[in-house]
Amino acid sequence: MAPTPPSRRRRSWWGWGWEDQALTEDEIAELAAFLNRRFGVEPDLRPKPALRNSMLPVPRIAPPDPLRPIADVSVHERARHTYGRAFRDVARALAGDLGGAPDAVVYPASIADVARVLEWCDRARVAVVAYGGGSSVVGGVEYRGEGGFDAWVSLDLTRLDRVVEIDTTSRAALVEGGIMGPTLEGRLRPSGLTFRHFPQSFEFSTLGGWIATRSGGHYATALTHVDDLVEGVTVVTPAGELRTLRVPGSGAGPSPDRLFLGSEGALGIITEAWIRLQARPVFKTAAGVHFARWEDGVAACRALAQSGLQPANCRLIDAVEAVTFAGVRDGASLLVLGFESADQPVDAAMERALELCRDHGGVVPQAPSTGGERDDAVGRWRSSFFRAPYLRDALIRLGVIVETFETACTWQAFDELHAQVTDAAARALQEVCGIGWVTCRFTHLYPDGPASYFSVFGMGRRGSEVAMWDEIKAAVSEAVLSAGGTITHHHAVGRDHRPWYDRQVPELVRSGIAAAKAVLDPGGILNPGVLVDPR
Amino acid sequence: MAPTPPSRRRRSWWGWGWEDQALTEDEIAELAAFLNRRFGVEPDLRPKPALRNSMLPVPRIAPPDPLRPIADVSVHERARHTYGRAFRDVARALAGDLGGAPDAVVYPASIADVARVLEWCDRARVAVVAYGGGSSVVGGVEYRGEGGFDAWVSLDLTRLDRVVEIDTTSRAALVEGGIMGPTLEGRLRPSGLTFRHFPQSFEFSTLGGWIATRSGGHYATALTHVDDLVEGVTVVTPAGELRTLRVPGSGAGPSPDRLFLGSEGALGIITEAWIRLQARPVFKTAAGVHFARWEDGVAACRALAQSGLQPANCRLIDAVEAVTFAGVRDGASLLVLGFESADQPVDAAMERALELCRDHGGVVPQAPSTGGERDDAVGRWRSSFFRAPYLRDALIRLGVIVETFETACTWQAFDELHAQVTDAAARALQEVCGIGWVTCRFTHLYPDGPASYFSVFGMGRRGSEVAMWDEIKAAVSEAVLSAGGTITHHHAVGRDHRPWYDRQVPELVRSGIAAAKAVLDPGGILNPGVLVDPR
Repeated sequence: MAPTPPSRRRRSWWGWGWEDQALTEDEIAELAAFLNRRFGVEPDLRPKPALRNSMLPVPRIAPPDPLRPIADVSVHERARHTYGRAFRDVARALAGDLGGAPDAVVYPASIADVARVLEWCDRARVAVVAYGGGSSVVGGVEYRGEGGFDAWVSLDLTRLDRVVEIDTTSRAALVEGGIMGPTLEGRLRPSGLTFRHFPQSFEFSTLGGWIATRSGGHYATALTHVDDLVEGVTVVTPAGELRTLRVPGSGAGPSPDRLFLGSEGALGIITEAWIRLQARPVFKTAAGVHFARWEDGVAACRALAQSGLQPANCRLIDAVEAVTFAGVRDGASLLVLGFESADQPVDAAMERALELCRDHGGVVPQAPSTGGERDDAVGRWRSSFFRAPYLRDALIRLGVIVETFETACTWQAFDELHAQVTDAAARALQEVCGIGWVTCRFTHLYPDGPASYFSVFGMGRRGSEVAMWDEIKAAVSEAVLSAGGTITHHHAVGRDHRPWYDRQVPELVRSGIAAAKAVLDPGGILNPGVLVDPR
Repeated sequence: MAPTPPSRRRRSWWGWGWEDQALTEDEIAELAAFLNRRFGVEPDLRPKPALRNSMLPVPRIAPPDPLRPIADVSVHERARHTYGRAFRDVARALAGDLGGAPDAVVYPASIADVARVLEWCDRARVAVVAYGGGSSVVGGVEYRGEGGFDAWVSLDLTRLDRVVEIDTTSRAALVEGGIMGPTLEGRLRPSGLTFRHFPQSFEFSTLGGWIATRSGGHYATALTHVDDLVEGVTVVTPAGELRTLRVPGSGAGPSPDRLFLGSEGALGIITEAWIRLQARPVFKTAAGVHFARWEDGVAACRALAQSGLQPANCRLIDAVEAVTFAGVRDGASLLVLGFESADQPVDAAMERALELCRDHGGVVPQAPSTGGERDDAVGRWRSSFFRAPYLRDALIRLGVIVETFETACTWQAFDELHAQVTDAAARALQEVCGIGWVTCRFTHLYPDGPASYFSVFGMGRRGSEVAMWDEIKAAVSEAVLSAGGTITHHHAVGRDHRPWYDRQVPELVRSGIAAAKAVLDPGGILNPGVLVDPR
């Protein structure tokens, strides 16, 4: 029996989000015209893939009777769970390549179900890949044969979507790991509290997925990483279930929670978490600042990050991105700046922040607004931002190779990292695509450095898209690492970042994680090949 | 050859800090009179212990020739490194019990020295206990025979005290692990930056010790835990040296740094760290708020913690502690409140904070002051605070059993925890000492709960002090755990908290840590018995 879908709207089985939110034919035509102007090419639109034209491997195992009520072996569900939503995932799906589909999708409805699935898989030697919203852009929710398992199941956790308890006194809640962002916020709303964690994937990702991938929220500073929003976790492993103590702070040995933050489905299944909530902000202010020179914007961001002001929003967008996505026509870089508080006015903070920006050559074309819809560059950029993943799918259909590289480094290292990554990307695009385009923005700011986000676009050749992407990915990743950046700031490691992760993290630490995995997952069935090599 | 001591002033070999800072005979007489009034007893002053009356075990090993220049087997150094500075450590030293003294103290002067010491110890089957400032109050720097090693060395890291590099752009520094608090701040001063991490042990503890024990600084909220101030670490283990990547943030797998934060000398020796610095605060304001009812003070603290104001200081002190240490004579609990910033005025924040306090029944007897010396309750409490460990030693000499219990729990759990811990402590004092005294204050505040700090005092019987302390410790620790608190918020686990740590942290997590330890320390020589059992 197939479980009831959470909503009548259909999720795309091959691309981002809702089927009905994909770019319209008109929008795609407009995009094609833009590409024509930009790259001088006549893009060739790939058709949307149709499952009836695809081939899926015959399932090699059948879930045992007790698990059949929670298993789904339908073509649509197996296809939808074959990949995450990286460029190479969408490109492979567009090419009809579904050879790696799971043998079954399993939808546990309780923590006990999760334990039963793991028990069966451990006994039957079946690999288990945890699947939340399926929004991984790093190859985190597929299976590429690591460890030589004959079969694999995609463990879809989205039926574990209850808010079990809300503690309004401590501002915390016990929530199941498979809950999607909007469901979580919807269920918290009556309490007046919010988790206030909005990764770009918010609509299509889960609490457990955020924790497993150390997800970064929308806010630029302070409480934005899910790492800091977790009070305690419940984890089911093949070796048993564990619950960490729910406390606001502790100094009792290495943090148990931090072992599972970033565990990417390889150390256990995060079935529940006590999470920290906040009051909904009521004081809000936002402004856009233009910087004629990128370097001045960077210096202003550093001053802001080190000021202690902790802006909720502080996103510096380079000129190319600013003109394209926010309609900034003066060739300036745009800084999207915002403050929020549930308790006290934020105007003084904005005033001081704008003063710091002006000290660094920033120009403020419009007075700060106090919330609501905005009609200026800030508002335009915001709309583009949430549409970006759908736009990406349309670009892929038009044959564009598109990828993002997100990293963090110190302020001292940043100028060089920016130069090296931009240069490596431009060279790779030149070599692989003949032509291309690189942009940069800041997503998060720390007193000691920025998290920078590079977007790369180039024209692909039909049939070679994945190989072209791989080549660009490798070249830019090398530049990120050699310039002192982390291979991932908030997208996680998955399979696509593994080679660089292995070089970034000391071997002894990786061996320590592998040893811990051997305790928690003796059969090595959990997301094999992620974080550590199968034994 | 004994290394040159870092200063001409002598560190006490048996008690806290500097010998010349111990309470004077007059002060001790005053304290005895106070105890007489309070407990109706005539305290019996134990003499300061004299090394010439003590017996030390004959060293069972001799460091090999290459290590002799950095080894010290003198009576004074072996005695000084026998214990940390817990009640039971001072009591044992006062009783002349130095049977557990290290066979040698080794003072590496370089990271290579540390590696050489570990290599020799691993080969010779000698246990190694890392020693920074020696301020452990949990039995973290002694050896109790765990794992059955015949000999042990105390690895004193205080010669690793260089500030290797200061990166003023990123506000960070590379610093060796053995640097003591005042030396660190002194060397940072010319840069205008500060680490701004002031645990009560600041003067007698090291950067590496802070990291190994997840130390909590003086500040009540925001950047106060050393966990959040570390960019990267260098760790020497018997299996080799490792360096984590220095970045402001990363989502690449479980955080390597967080594996060593709280590792308590059992997973490796923290020889260096890149640490985050801040500009020195220039805007400061402080105020004292009186609450006639403790519960109102608690409610005010919760409102402050959840307001987003992030006070630097927000220490609620109960009435007994307030009258004793801050001269608050109206029977009120005292809230010591403070704000600091290097960039912007903090008066508005103080104003809003005081408004929240008044909403909860707080009375502000004196307008906020903007730094400098204070003559009021806040000033008096501050002086007592830094003198407290010396006072504790004098109390121990006067036969008082004195201990502190520090924990954290949610706001929801706090009232019950406060009642249970107070009750358990009072009952234990009644049973063990016949009479006693329990106080409580908050040391740190989180939006989801307070870190509370209980002080326990009772009269001991000569010769039974350690056994009496053990009994009280066990009774109160049970209460902490059963009420939902962590067994330690910032004092660490060491040997004294092990039984409760083992119950608090899931067995699978502890097994995972043990497995990681087996990779990093295959011979199990590092601080055996701390965190995990010897194999």
